[in-house]
This record gives sequence, C-alpha cells and structure tokens, in this order.
Amino acid sequence: NETAKAELGRATWKLLHTMTLRYPEHPTQDERDALSSYLHLTSRLYPCGECAAEFQELLKAFPPQTVSRLAASLWLCSIHNKVNERLGKPSFDCAHLDETYDCGC
Amino acid sequence: NETAKAELGRATWKLLHTMTLRYPEHPTQDERDALSSYLHLTSRLYPCGECAAEFQELLKAFPPQTVSRLAASLWLCSIHNKVNERLGKPSFDCAHLDETYDCGC
Ligand SMILES: Cc1cc2nc3c(=O)[nH]c(=O)nc-3n(C[C@H](O)[C@H](O)[C@H](O)COP(=O)(O)OP(=O)(O)OC[C@H]3O[C@@H](n4cnc5c(N)ncnc54)[C@H](O)[C@@H]3O)c2cc1C
Ligand SMILES: Cc1cc2nc3c(=O)[nH]c(=O)nc-3n(C[C@H](O)[C@H](O)[C@H](O)COP(=O)(O)OP(=O)(O)OC[C@H]3O[C@@H](n4cnc5c(N)ncnc54)[C@H](O)[C@@H]3O)c2cc1C
Repeated sequence: NETAKAELGRATWKLLHTMTLRYPEHPTQDERDALSSYLHLTSRLYPCGECAAEFQELLKAFPPQTVSRLAASLWLCSIHNKVNERLGKPSFDCAHLDETYDCGC
Repeated sequence: NETAKAELGRATWKLLHTMTLRYPEHPTQDERDALSSYLHLTSRLYPCGECAAEFQELLKAFPPQTVSRLAASLWLCSIHNKVNERLGKPSFDCAHLDETYDCGC
C-alpha cells in the first residue's frame, strides 16, 4: 500500500521539520541530547521498516547537527533531500524552510 | 494560526498511532524503553508549546503502557481521547484503531 506509506512519510516530515524550526536557537547540552535521542529513536520506531533502515543508515553517515536551530533545520532538510534523491523526487531548496513550515504556535 | 496547529496535530497523531500499531506484540525491555523515551521526548520537543505542556501533564498522570502492541495502542488512543475531550471533540472508539491506521508497510 504505497498511498498509506506516502501519507505517513508526509506526516512525519511535517512534524520533524516543524520541530527543528522551533528548536532553540541556542540550545543547552540537555536540549541537544534530547533532539539527537529523539531522531535516533524515530529511526528505530518508524513504522515502515524499509524507511527506518534507510533513516538509520543516514543518521550513521550524517549525524544530527544540534548546535542551533539553523544547524538542525538545515541538517534535516539535507537528509530529506537525500531521501528525495533516492526516491527520484526533486530536491527542495532549503532557503524556503521558514515559509513552508509554520506550526501556528 | 489555528489551521497550522491543527495540521501539525493531525500529522503527529497519525505518526504516533501508526507507530504503536506496528510496535512489537512482545517487546524486549530495550524496545519498551525506546517507546517510553520516544514519547517523553516528543512531549518535550513538540513544536506547539501549549500542546507540549498538556502532553507532559498527561504522561505524568498516565504513564505510557509499553508491555505489548495492544497495551501501547490502547493507551495512546485513551490519551488522544483525553485531548479530544479537553478540546470539545468527539471521543474515538478504540475498537476501530486497526482499520483507521495502515502504514502500508
Ligand atoms: C525518515 C523517513 C524515511 C523514508 N524512507 C522512505 C523509503 O525508504 N522509501 C519510501 O518509499 N518512502 C520513504 N519515506 C517516505 C517518503 O520520504 C515521502 O514522505 C513519501 O514518498 C511522500 O512523498 P511526497 O512527494 O508527498 O513528499 P515528502 O517527501 O513527504 O515531503 C512532503 C513535503 O515536504 C516538502 N519537502 C520536500 N523535500 C524537503 C526537504 N528536503 N526539506 C524540507 N521540506 C521538504 C515539500 O513541500 C513536500 O511536498 C520516508 C519518510 C521518512 C520520514
Ligand atoms: C500530543 C498532542 C497534544 C495536543 N494538544 C493540543 C492542545 O493543547 N490544544 C490544541 O488546540 N490542539 C492540541 N493538539 C492538536 C489536536 O489534538 C488536534 O490534532 C487538532 O485540533 C486537529 O484535530 P482534528 O479534529 O483534525 O483531529 P485529530 O485530533 O488531529 O485526530 C486526527 C484523526 O485521528 C482519529 N482519532 C481521533 N481520536 C482518536 C483517538 N483517540 N485514537 C485514535 N485515533 C483518533 C480521527 O480519525 C481523527 O480525524 C495536540 C496534538 C498532539 C499530537
């Protein structure tokens, strides 16, 4: 069921991008550890097994950047672009993150 | 911006419910710890601050049940119903979880 897999992917990317764009601009070490753990746990618990395996490989090759909001959101944008590339999807211009993800908070 | 907040909520609930419905039927202690940590980190990092605070309170009052897939998915369904109640939304019949959440995996 490719439709369900795609819907789950869209929902997850939305949460993850919005999260990095609300992450502190100057995080504490504890906040940095929280984001890093959260991303690693997401890659373990993600319901699509093939996607989870792919995400785990990406996290190994490109460890999460958590030093600031900008670093985290650009890191995630580049990871999403690597998934896009593998799936034959167009690359996203990471300069447009702010306009695309608004959590309304 | 209530529309953005609602979209983020829908995306997040979709990921969380699908995750608990793919969680192992007989998890190891390590898998149980992973789900519990994941939920607590979600409540810290969730981009809507008011929602995050509410979720943290719920996790304190009703600690995640991680002993099995059934326990975890029914626990999450009841937590979502508590949020529904607070927001004046109808309660969801947790007997329909399986039909509603298909990850297509
Ligand atoms: C961690 C993870 C791993 C995945 N692995 C796989 C896999 O191995 N196989 C598989 O079939 N599917 C996988 N998926 C699902 C896949 O990435 C897509 O979500 C799904 O195919 C739906 O694609 P889409 O074209 O609707 O856009 P999506 O890729 O879901 O993106 C949603 C929207 O985000 C925006 N966007 C696109 N690129 C970026 C970017 N780089 N940065 C910020 N915003 C962007 C665009 O507006 C786009 O419409 C994975 C999903 C996740 C979350
Ligand atoms: C952790 C968390 C806390 C939140 N706290 C707040 C808050 O404090 N204030 C606020 O304004 N918004 C909050 N939200 C957002 C809010 O819960 C809704 O997501 C949002 O209002 C959109 O609602 P909706 O009517 O589209 O359905 P949603 O509640 O988003 O549900 C999406 C779909 O899931 C199904 N569903 C409904 N109930 C259940 C259930 N119990 N179990 C399984 N499936 C179900 C239905 O098919 C429903 O259409 C929170 C979201 C999350 C994830």
